[in-house]
Amino acid sequence: MFTYSELLTADQVERIHQASLHILAEVGLLVRNERARQIFARHGCWVDEETHLVRFPIGVVEEFRQMFPSKFIFRGRDERFDKVLPDDSPVIVTASSAPNIIDPVTGQERRATSEDIARIAYLVNELPGYDVFSVSTLAEDAPPGYFTLARLYPALKNCLKPVRSTATDLEDARRVLQLGELIAGDEKTYAQRPFITHHFCPVVSPLTMDVASTELTIFFAEKGLPVYPSIVPNGGLTAPMTMSGTLVQGNAEFLAAAVLMQMVRPQTPLIYSTLPTIADMRTGAYASGGVECGMLHMAFAQMARFYGVPCGGYIGLSNSKVNDAQAGYETGISCTAALLGGAHMLNMGGLLDALKAFDYAKAVIDDEIAQMLKRIRRGMEFNEENLALDVIAEVKPGGNFMTHKHTVKWMRKVALMPRIADREPREVWEKRGALDAFQRAKQRAAEVLSKPTPVSFPPEIEARIRSVFPEMVHGEVIPVEGW
Amino acid sequence: MFTYSELLTADQVERIHQASLHILAEVGLLVRNERARQIFARHGCWVDEETHLVRFPIGVVEEFRQMFPSKFIFRGRDERFDKVLPDDSPVIVTASSAPNIIDPVTGQERRATSEDIARIAYLVNELPGYDVFSVSTLAEDAPPGYFTLARLYPALKNCLKPVRSTATDLEDARRVLQLGELIAGDEKTYAQRPFITHHFCPVVSPLTMDVASTELTIFFAEKGLPVYPSIVPNGGLTAPMTMSGTLVQGNAEFLAAAVLMQMVRPQTPLIYSTLPTIADMRTGAYASGGVECGMLHMAFAQMARFYGVPCGGYIGLSNSKVNDAQAGYETGISCTAALLGGAHMLNMGGLLDALKAFDYAKAVIDDEIAQMLKRIRRGMEFNEENLALDVIAEVKPGGNFMTHKHTVKWMRKVALMPRIADREPREVWEKRGALDAFQRAKQRAAEVLSKPTPVSFPPEIEARIRSVFPEMVHGEVIPVEGW
Repeated sequence: MFTYSELLTADQVERIHQASLHILAEVGLLVRNERARQIFARHGCWVDEETHLVRFPIGVVEEFRQMFPSKFIFRGRDERFDKVLPDDSPVIVTASSAPNIIDPVTGQERRATSEDIARIAYLVNELPGYDVFSVSTLAEDAPPGYFTLARLYPALKNCLKPVRSTATDLEDARRVLQLGELIAGDEKTYAQRPFITHHFCPVVSPLTMDVASTELTIFFAEKGLPVYPSIVPNGGLTAPMTMSGTLVQGNAEFLAAAVLMQMVRPQTPLIYSTLPTIADMRTGAYASGGVECGMLHMAFAQMARFYGVPCGGYIGLSNSKVNDAQAGYETGISCTAALLGGAHMLNMGGLLDALKAFDYAKAVIDDEIAQMLKRIRRGMEFNEENLALDVIAEVKPGGNFMTHKHTVKWMRKVALMPRIADREPREVWEKRGALDAFQRAKQRAAEVLSKPTPVSFPPEIEARIRSVFPEMVHGEVIPVEGW
Repeated sequence: MFTYSELLTADQVERIHQASLHILAEVGLLVRNERARQIFARHGCWVDEETHLVRFPIGVVEEFRQMFPSKFIFRGRDERFDKVLPDDSPVIVTASSAPNIIDPVTGQERRATSEDIARIAYLVNELPGYDVFSVSTLAEDAPPGYFTLARLYPALKNCLKPVRSTATDLEDARRVLQLGELIAGDEKTYAQRPFITHHFCPVVSPLTMDVASTELTIFFAEKGLPVYPSIVPNGGLTAPMTMSGTLVQGNAEFLAAAVLMQMVRPQTPLIYSTLPTIADMRTGAYASGGVECGMLHMAFAQMARFYGVPCGGYIGLSNSKVNDAQAGYETGISCTAALLGGAHMLNMGGLLDALKAFDYAKAVIDDEIAQMLKRIRRGMEFNEENLALDVIAEVKPGGNFMTHKHTVKWMRKVALMPRIADREPREVWEKRGALDAFQRAKQRAAEVLSKPTPVSFPPEIEARIRSVFPEMVHGEVIPVEGW
């Protein structure tokens, strides 16, 4: 392990907390969802039913934030893949909900479909760096009424790791739960191990709670099912231009959502999840690849530690359109900063062009980056055998360690053995086709997807699902022709 | 600023120190340089003149390590570019001494020449992320006797920033100094502002002091000229396979070199500089792009803080042969880890294929990475104006910050405005030629080098140099034909 790198002093953390309380008490929150207003009113907030502005007495926020649990569990269809935050951190999650995919054959961007999701789900199942599959893309081929199901079904079918889903409205949310229950066997069995984690953005910056996502956050919190919100302030547009201003507003927004969840059901587990950015004001561009995102994650992690909740969120989302050096360093720098700053969960895998397009090669490259982050987290093994003082004495000044039995014993355990990074001499690399990391990663994705997928649903589950959802997409992993 | 992320506990740091003392006292150092053996003997070390093994009483090391100064100054030809470690950290230095260059026209690797160095020097002069120019390549066209001068002269001529040099032997070192004095005007003027920083690797791992580099380290330390050593343990081959073992051996090697410098001249400034790696034991490859390098830098930084000396070294040296995603994430991850771990100096710019080839585009990309690291170092501005509580109140829930005067005031000051990272929508990026980061970086290098260089030597200095070194290379920045 490691100690965290911190951008803020303890006094500054306290100041951010106090200033956030001040914002919630004085400026307030615009709450468009009626049930949320009722819940807030019932628990002592000042609600203006004309303006829909809700203001939070400091004592109310302080009371409910004491209830935040310190852990959050992601459950998989297979419990061996369960992950507990913060214990298993860094928990690596794919970045999600891109409308498009870079077609692996044409190299062109196009709308993504449920068939793409099936392939991506299986790829994520097989890549060791990923812990949670947050469905990477939308599904353009979704039948009417299947907007969410056509994404979630192929995801669950082809990935045993925890899957994160969203939903569009209450009706949709009920279908999502029904799918989970059909897979588990019945409602009770599902409730014992809910393997779908729900995620919403109930707060729209600045300081506004929307109707649908808020409703759904309440819905799942009420049922005691795993759900957490992400806060998405964009400095210069939906938050102050300054980093401290973006932090304090984002923190107030987190507190509002988190307090609502505790009011709905005390001790509801949550994650202090964010997607903070500072806009590129030359053009107004969404700068999710900027180094400021890594810094903001470091600062938000400090706030999360102050509240005693697990944290993380979207990070390392490159603005690059291709798998070039930019895509590499933007993801690498921000993710490393977030990790060493104390983020427990990183939604970092597979997307290019900010959140617009999924790319197979990017998913494979990010898997390697994820493994590098996990290598850092493992830290330096430190004991007398690792110190190797006797080995140093035996090898002697001027000697060679290569053939020492200590080397042989440890050679496969110490360093990460990357599959994408190439370390051959140039001549060897050229002889093998002079492929760059993008091409090697694309090959690796093709390799994984060319094998039959052992992960699927047994026929009886398949039959149950189809009897309830007759128009469900097939969700099979079909080889890509011409790849 | 930020607090450092630490891999080791305080007890482990103390243990590494004690174990290093033990290594130096019991295992000892093979010292091939006779003068070094004499100096060690004179200051209380046990020297075996038959085996050339030197062992260090613990009290001797403890006495001399108290003399390590806490600062190191890099001076430039123009004093406005002077950098003080650790105050001005991160000090970004180019990585150096590659035999080859990727030709910007053919894209092929070839031997580098003094003409390449002239161009690189000017590029480094112009790129804002770099603080020190450590001469990037060798010069194949060096006339006999000009091996070092043919590199150093074009470097000094075209770069006002501090320049780091090496030397092959005493004769060569005297020529290097002579060049500095000819530029300064005379010996005394040069001694007041020595703008060449000398660098050597006197310790060859494991635990061996060589003849030439050790001689030169002594030579410059005696004269009170800026010189520092780098320690280069390679776990699995020249150091134990384990990270803690590589750390403890490297630390003993640093102490040996640093103590020698203090014996030569008490309070000689130095840098705890390292290039630590763990070999890829699948092939024995030199894995300078591995995440373990970043981790070792974090650990060495902790040792440097224990000794109160500035630290850093070679980091983020990608194993990639091209400017692909691998080159991006290897440099990005390790440099960020080293920075947040407390490294003050990063030799990170411009090389591909470990240390084998310089590439113009890589130098430009690394300049952007350097600026990102410096943005992290600047930290989060934190005061009442930055917190922007009044702005948040004025914009109100649901409002927009874009046109607020606070946004206008801060929009150019908060975020780094990258030149290489592309943040345009895909359509715009395509319309502009769909260039990747490598191509954009190459264009930027070409742009810088297409302008006349105002940095050079006045005719009288040029004449002085040529009268003493008649066969000196021309050192002019000549536009590359066909670029």
